[in-house]
Amino acid sequence: MPPVTEQLPTGTNLDPWFDHYAERAAGLRASEVRALFAVASRPEVVSLAGGMPFVSALPEDLVQGSIDEVMRTEGPVALQYGSGQGFPRLREQILDVMALEGIRANADDIVVTTGSQHALELVSKLFLDPGDVVLAEGPSYVTAMVIFRSYQADVDHVPMDEHGLIPEALREHIAALRSQGRTIKLLYTIPSFHNPAGVTLSWERRLEILQIARENDILVLEDNPYGLLYFDRPAPDALRSVEEEGVIYLGTFSKTLAPGFRVGWALAPHAIREKLVLANEAAILCPSSFSQLVISKYLETADWKGQINTFRGVYHERKNAMISALEEHLPEFSWTNPHGGFYVWVTMPEPLDSKAMLPRAVKELVAFTPGTAFYGDGGGRQNLRLSFCYPTSDQIRLGVRRLANVVRGELDLLETFAGTGSLTDTGAHRFTTPTDMA
Amino acid sequence: MPPVTEQLPTGTNLDPWFDHYAERAAGLRASEVRALFAVASRPEVVSLAGGMPFVSALPEDLVQGSIDEVMRTEGPVALQYGSGQGFPRLREQILDVMALEGIRANADDIVVTTGSQHALELVSKLFLDPGDVVLAEGPSYVTAMVIFRSYQADVDHVPMDEHGLIPEALREHIAALRSQGRTIKLLYTIPSFHNPAGVTLSWERRLEILQIARENDILVLEDNPYGLLYFDRPAPDALRSVEEEGVIYLGTFSKTLAPGFRVGWALAPHAIREKLVLANEAAILCPSSFSQLVISKYLETADWKGQINTFRGVYHERKNAMISALEEHLPEFSWTNPHGGFYVWVTMPEPLDSKAMLPRAVKELVAFTPGTAFYGDGGGRQNLRLSFCYPTSDQIRLGVRRLANVVRGELDLLETFAGTGSLTDTGAHRFTTPTDMA
Repeated sequence: MPPVTEQLPTGTNLDPWFDHYAERAAGLRASEVRALFAVASRPEVVSLAGGMPFVSALPEDLVQGSIDEVMRTEGPVALQYGSGQGFPRLREQILDVMALEGIRANADDIVVTTGSQHALELVSKLFLDPGDVVLAEGPSYVTAMVIFRSYQADVDHVPMDEHGLIPEALREHIAALRSQGRTIKLLYTIPSFHNPAGVTLSWERRLEILQIARENDILVLEDNPYGLLYFDRPAPDALRSVEEEGVIYLGTFSKTLAPGFRVGWALAPHAIREKLVLANEAAILCPSSFSQLVISKYLETADWKGQINTFRGVYHERKNAMISALEEHLPEFSWTNPHGGFYVWVTMPEPLDSKAMLPRAVKELVAFTPGTAFYGDGGGRQNLRLSFCYPTSDQIRLGVRRLANVVRGELDLLETFAGTGSLTDTGAHRFTTPTDMA
Repeated sequence: MPPVTEQLPTGTNLDPWFDHYAERAAGLRASEVRALFAVASRPEVVSLAGGMPFVSALPEDLVQGSIDEVMRTEGPVALQYGSGQGFPRLREQILDVMALEGIRANADDIVVTTGSQHALELVSKLFLDPGDVVLAEGPSYVTAMVIFRSYQADVDHVPMDEHGLIPEALREHIAALRSQGRTIKLLYTIPSFHNPAGVTLSWERRLEILQIARENDILVLEDNPYGLLYFDRPAPDALRSVEEEGVIYLGTFSKTLAPGFRVGWALAPHAIREKLVLANEAAILCPSSFSQLVISKYLETADWKGQINTFRGVYHERKNAMISALEEHLPEFSWTNPHGGFYVWVTMPEPLDSKAMLPRAVKELVAFTPGTAFYGDGGGRQNLRLSFCYPTSDQIRLGVRRLANVVRGELDLLETFAGTGSLTDTGAHRFTTPTDMA
């Protein structure tokens, strides 16, 4: 059994149960992003690291009104256990949300989950045997990879460019893995306003990637938390809008309303949905009745589409502030210029190393997420993810200015050590930034 | 791979992904209790089957007041992501709740979970490899067994009597399993007001069972949802009050407040707690901030101990109604007479079969849970679980009267077939009912 205790924080070398854990427990490691959260929560630090939505843009009376109405009319139901699949009324309303991205479905094929994160967990529990492979974009969402690894599956990163996952690379990776006798269980993808890359899969590529998945009998796991948070124009319709039997689609209210309720969902082919409900019941008995009813009431009574427009405006302004600040202070860097979502993916020139740079950054009171967090294979050292969702535009400008200071300090230091052989080229994951994305 | 599709409801034989599931998915089966919920939810049926607390005994303004206060003073925190371990303030308050059962602990050793059900899931994910054994009382909690099986572990039932788990039987089972080379990972126990058996482990046996677990290097998983819901006198202090390093303790607000918020917790030895937080973050990122703050505010401002007293009074009255009705209508049966909790465990004389009797019962508009649901090995056919938590005393009396009709109908039918050899003796799991429990 792997020495799991070595991968943990202090104190665990005294764990009297260290030889009792399951083999899969070795895959549960603290992510780099997690350690950052503690640091970045100090108020003097400008955090460009987290993924917290700006819930203050949500009028409190809007939520309060929904809560009051639920307690007044459905209190005993809100306080009680519900079904493992989630309330039918909420599932019907979720159809309206998904229709905005071209999805036509049946409410019976939806399972309400504890955030879409738990849908990721349930799908993984249902499908992943030790040694299986999950195909994912490189870079990919940190905590999805943590889950895949916790079920002892390996993540194989397929390259992206500014139009998203590259179909030809996908074909090559599938062929290579199969020639090694590997079992590919899932293609995990965030097609719209990718976390962390900020890019969006083009419509033509969506069709092509679905075709590749079909040909190769690979189930697609489409994770779409940001799809409705576009700036100037909507993302192409969801993969699930084209393909019903080969896609499990994940959605959430965490970004379009508020994450504090922990309500997301999976839309799955019917037989898979049946198993997801069983897995959901085993894990939590049922999703929170209270949270579900509050969100259902909000969707019924509030101008939720107008509220999403408000969020879009806030994030668009902040994204513009970030891009302007990067142009002003770090012109030697390159970055993606997203049309929606929360993140900009930055590529630094050699020999900068984002992970090595982080301690200095925190000292200079700015936090970011090193690119390595988004790769399972050590890639991403010349990349960093900057998030513009939570800090104000002023804070973003201040943060990028501090980041530029950090970079100058690092370059000074690196120059001092130049030629000593202590630096290694790790390869930049750079996406070109065509003019149509500016 | 096992034919998972055969274990599912209609339609799944068309599942195009049937050969893609993980091996563990075969362990996810719909429980007998689950199918019952659908039937028993029809209003004309008196359900003695479910485990829903009577939340209507909770004054709505008490909860509403906590919600209003949270939204007024901490709205943006309630709507946002929180930490994977849960809010420190709530964890401090949970120490006060556990102190009522003799537990002294550190708030840092607590993880807030999505109901204590999710703590069961996380512990299982962390510890259970395929082929491991979990020791559990016979009978035991249905959905715990579903989780253990979903991680491909086997449940070995250790017999109980009216004083709970039998220490000598525990020693024998451990010896027998080890002589077969089996790995025992956990002893899962509900020591107080057991679900479904209704019995409580005596203080002397608590000490003895902890001693056996220590000697045999077996981690104890103490599940205590009902401990504070005693009727006439408190249960003995928790196992965790005696033993710190060898016990993971699970608690919940589902029965002392309301299940609709889905808030429970695990108190674990420190190194295990660290891993539980990682597993919790992987599964759901964080427990609901909103639910946590509402419960924290409720504990801070409301007379929560007084409210638990109110619940005790309600359930005590209903338990008495059930016992009286059983004495009047089914004197040929035996049953446990619990000092707390939600359930009475009934033993029927041969040749009655609780599972075979269920369709007739539903036709007569009364529902119960067949004893077989609480065994992984086919036991419990002469047993049934009756719950007195949700129906009123009048409904309980009506339900037991209907049950007596069902039994008479069954006995008539069985007499008709007597001597044809179609009946088999499955063994009764009868607990004697000593006078001190009456």
